[in-house]
Parts: sequence; C-alpha cells; structure tokens
Amino acid sequence: MTETTTPVAVLGLGRMGRALARAFLSAGHPTTVWNRTPSAADELVAGGARHADTVADAVHAGRLIVVCLTDYPAVYAVLEQADLAGTIVVNLTSGDSAQARAAARWAEQRGARYLDGAIMAVPTVIGTADAVLLHSGAQADFDAAAPVLAALGTVTHLGADHGLAALYDGAGLAMMWSVLNAWLQGTAMLRTAGVDARTFAPFAAQIATGVATWLPGYAEQVDNGAYPAEVAALSTDAASMTHLVEECEALGVNAELPKLLKAMAERAIAAGHGAEQYPVLITEFAKP
Amino acid sequence: MTETTTPVAVLGLGRMGRALARAFLSAGHPTTVWNRTPSAADELVAGGARHADTVADAVHAGRLIVVCLTDYPAVYAVLEQADLAGTIVVNLTSGDSAQARAAARWAEQRGARYLDGAIMAVPTVIGTADAVLLHSGAQADFDAAAPVLAALGTVTHLGADHGLAALYDGAGLAMMWSVLNAWLQGTAMLRTAGVDARTFAPFAAQIATGVATWLPGYAEQVDNGAYPAEVAALSTDAASMTHLVEECEALGVNAELPKLLKAMAERAIAAGHGAEQYPVLITEFAKP
Repeated sequence: MTETTTPVAVLGLGRMGRALARAFLSAGHPTTVWNRTPSAADELVAGGARHADTVADAVHAGRLIVVCLTDYPAVYAVLEQADLAGTIVVNLTSGDSAQARAAARWAEQRGARYLDGAIMAVPTVIGTADAVLLHSGAQADFDAAAPVLAALGTVTHLGADHGLAALYDGAGLAMMWSVLNAWLQGTAMLRTAGVDARTFAPFAAQIATGVATWLPGYAEQVDNGAYPAEVAALSTDAASMTHLVEECEALGVNAELPKLLKAMAERAIAAGHGAEQYPVLITEFAKP
Repeated sequence: MTETTTPVAVLGLGRMGRALARAFLSAGHPTTVWNRTPSAADELVAGGARHADTVADAVHAGRLIVVCLTDYPAVYAVLEQADLAGTIVVNLTSGDSAQARAAARWAEQRGARYLDGAIMAVPTVIGTADAVLLHSGAQADFDAAAPVLAALGTVTHLGADHGLAALYDGAGLAMMWSVLNAWLQGTAMLRTAGVDARTFAPFAAQIATGVATWLPGYAEQVDNGAYPAEVAALSTDAASMTHLVEECEALGVNAELPKLLKAMAERAIAAGHGAEQYPVLITEFAKP
C-alpha cells in the first residue's frame, strides 16, 4: 500500500492540539509540534513527532501549518514569529466569523494560503470518521489540504467565505444546546410525575429526529419568503405555548425556555403573521 | 377478513374532531357525532355517521366516547348533559396535567372509565400510522379502548397517571419548537453570509439527529444524579455560548436564544457545577 505523506506542523498542544498531532502521526505524516510550554510535546515526541524549539522552525518544517490555540490574539502572536510564505495555514482555533475573515486577509498578505476550520468533535474522537471538521476558504486551498486533513476525521468544505466555518459551528452548537435544553425541560416536567429521565429520553429523541426531517421543507418557505399554513398556523402554536408556560409554572419547574418560545411567537403574531406557518418566525430571528 | 367494530361517539367536530370521526368511519366503527353547531356534522353524515341531536343521545349510542372540544370547561359543560355510567371516555381535548387528573376523578365519580389523550399530529394525518396519539390512564381501560383507537393512528399508553399524556405532549412540543427555533437561529446567522436556508437545513437536521442519540446516555447521568465530564465540562460550553452571543450581536441577528442558553449555564456554574457535564443543568430546569 502506497500512501502520500505531507510534512505537517501543529502549533498549540492543548488537549485538542495533541489529539490532532497524534492523528497526523498515525496517518504517517511527518509531524513537527510546537507549544509555548514545551513539555506538552513530550508524549508526542515519544510517539514519533519532532519537537520544534521555535515557531519559525516548526513552520519551516511543515507544508501544512495546523493552528489550534486559545484564541485569535494568540494566533497572531504565534504566527508573526514565522515566515508563512508558501505554506497553507489551517486555523482550527475557536473564534467568530469576523475573526476568521480578518485572519485570512492577514495570512494571505504574508504569502500564505489560509483555511479556517471548526472542529465539531471532542479530542477523543479525533482521527475517526465521527470527528466532523468544517472548513472554509478557497476551493483550491481546501483541495490541496484535504488529503492531509482527512487524517483528522470527516472533513467538509463549506465555501470560499472564510467566515463560514465559524458560522456553521455556532449554528450547530445552538442546535446542540437547544435540543439538550428542550430535553432537560421535558425531563424536569416528567420528573414531577415520577417519570425517570431514561423513560422520557427515547420519546424526546424521537421528536427531535422527526422534527429534523421537516427542516428542508420549512427551508423552502424561508427561501421563498412565503409561509402558507399547510400544517398549522402560528397562532395555534402560540396558544399551545401559553399552555406550556402555565403547565411549567403550575409544576414548579423553570419556565424561561417556554416563555422565550411564546414571546417570539407572539411578537411575530403582533407583526401580522399569526395565520402563517412557523418558519415565518425567521422575521424575528433575523432582527437584532 | 373479520373485524371487530365498536360503537363510537365523537363529541366536538372542529377540524380535529371531524378527522377523528372520519377515521372511525373508515375503520368500520358505527360512529355517532355531536357538535354544538349541528351543521359541522353534515359531511360526516354523508359519509355514514349518525348525527345525535343531544349529547345524551350521542353518549347513549357509543360505548367509547371520544371528546375533542376547545378546552376543559367545555368538556364539563358537555359531558354533564349525559349519563356516563358504563362508558369509556377518551378525552383528547388539549389541556394541562392537572386538568386531566381532575377530569379523570370527575368522570370516574360518574361511573365512567376515563383515558386522557394527546394528539401529536395535525388533522390531515389522522387515520395513518404517522398520527401519534398518547394516552394515559389505567392499563385495563387502555387495553379496552386501544383496538378502537388504533383507527386513529399509532396509539401509545404512557402509564396510569392521567396527567402523563398532557405532560408528554407539552414536553414534545417544547422539543419541536426548540429544534425549529435553533434552526431559525442558525438560518438567520448563515443568511448574513448569503447561505440559503435550504443549504443550511440538512446540516441543522444532522446535528439535531446526532444530539438526539446522546439523550439516553445523558439520561443515565440525570437519573444517577452524577455528571462526570466524560465528554466536556459545562464551563467549556459556557465559553462557547459567550462566543455565540457575541457572534449573533455582531451579525445583527436576534440573540435572545443564545443569551438564554448562556444565562442558564452560567447560573449552574455559579452554583458550582462548571466542572460537570451538560445534563447537570437539570438542577436549573427543575427550579421554578
């Protein structure tokens, strides 16, 4: 079996950075590592990584420069120590879309190709297909990096706008926490009737999975800007939301989530959208 | 093919009540219908239903009395017009768990068996397996009614506590609206970068479906009251929530949902749970 290997540098060896370096090593890529505190590299060096004393040395050794630091100020502080010309910088540091776009311009001015990325996975699954990594930047840059990045997990290219990975990441996290919070809301409600969390969980999972299948159809309504009440009118939902708030208050469980649902629906109804379908709420979500 | 049929009375012929009556008729059950405004019965009578002029007449004709009215006060106002002794009342009127339990006591005092129910479906799918109906009440009463109720869709028995159907219904709706709102939040974010709703929808659906699979495991933590940070600590989530709020504010989209996520997590962290895993938030959801 022949395999193409590419020299990789990993800058930043927190829990995630170390997992990234291990995955590159496992895939056979010559991997140079650097961290502000050098001891973080010890285990990786034992596993075959080369340790660089300076950022410049690490960047010189790598063709692909993978950056996983605390925040964007740290990214600039580290990368300005090296000559980036001719490299592909893959920045997996958490940040927002504006930071990603600014970093792309900054790196490109220094002669680097730049990909932003978001890791939708915990360190323990890096190197398996379960690790989803989102990337944004020029298609050609992604195509050049993808064969190496594939060592990390399932890599996806979202588009040329460098801000997209951060936006999808934030949107995905909002979905994750929202599903968890709705499940916790229901769990709290059901526990007042002596129902175990494990009894309720499959029901909650089934609802979340079922509603997920509606999203592509509902998205058509958003894109078309027309929200005919094919299934139900928003005013019907709002009436049920009032019941939900009252139920939670009567049960003595937290009612903030139900109240927010209700407030947003009622605002859209006050704006004249009561006879339209749920996705018309995009008009509220799109406002500051 | 032999089929057992049972005389059914349907009280309340709004959109949902008419759909219920049609499904009973399609399944071959002799169906008597009553509505405060008799003209609502016309189409059903043309389809083979018998129209009763009075509630007493309708209840007399049915062995199973299916009630689908505006609210619980209407249920009492209607049912007190008839002798309920020996009937099984299946109340599918929307309400809360306390109303369901009180109605069960009231009906049982009048010699009826009582099942509460919640319809997790729109009228157009009643009579298909896609219509999920949740029931709560004595097992024997459910067993007696289930073969007839099966004409309506997929019927489930949740337990003897008559309040359970309303609780599961409310919890399910909270999940439904939460998935939709998180999707709208992400859609609003991505639209600022020119990404169509239909492009983002499959990604949002994949996240919702993936997170749903975590719920049974997370439920074990809630039931055990122990929240070891096997995957991530709540404090890590809270840091990402801060980024999400800032991103939404910078993009000029609504930030209320991200702010609520953040506020609840920070409250749990302030209570000392920052090093534990997300389901520890049940301690906040369980509070008034």
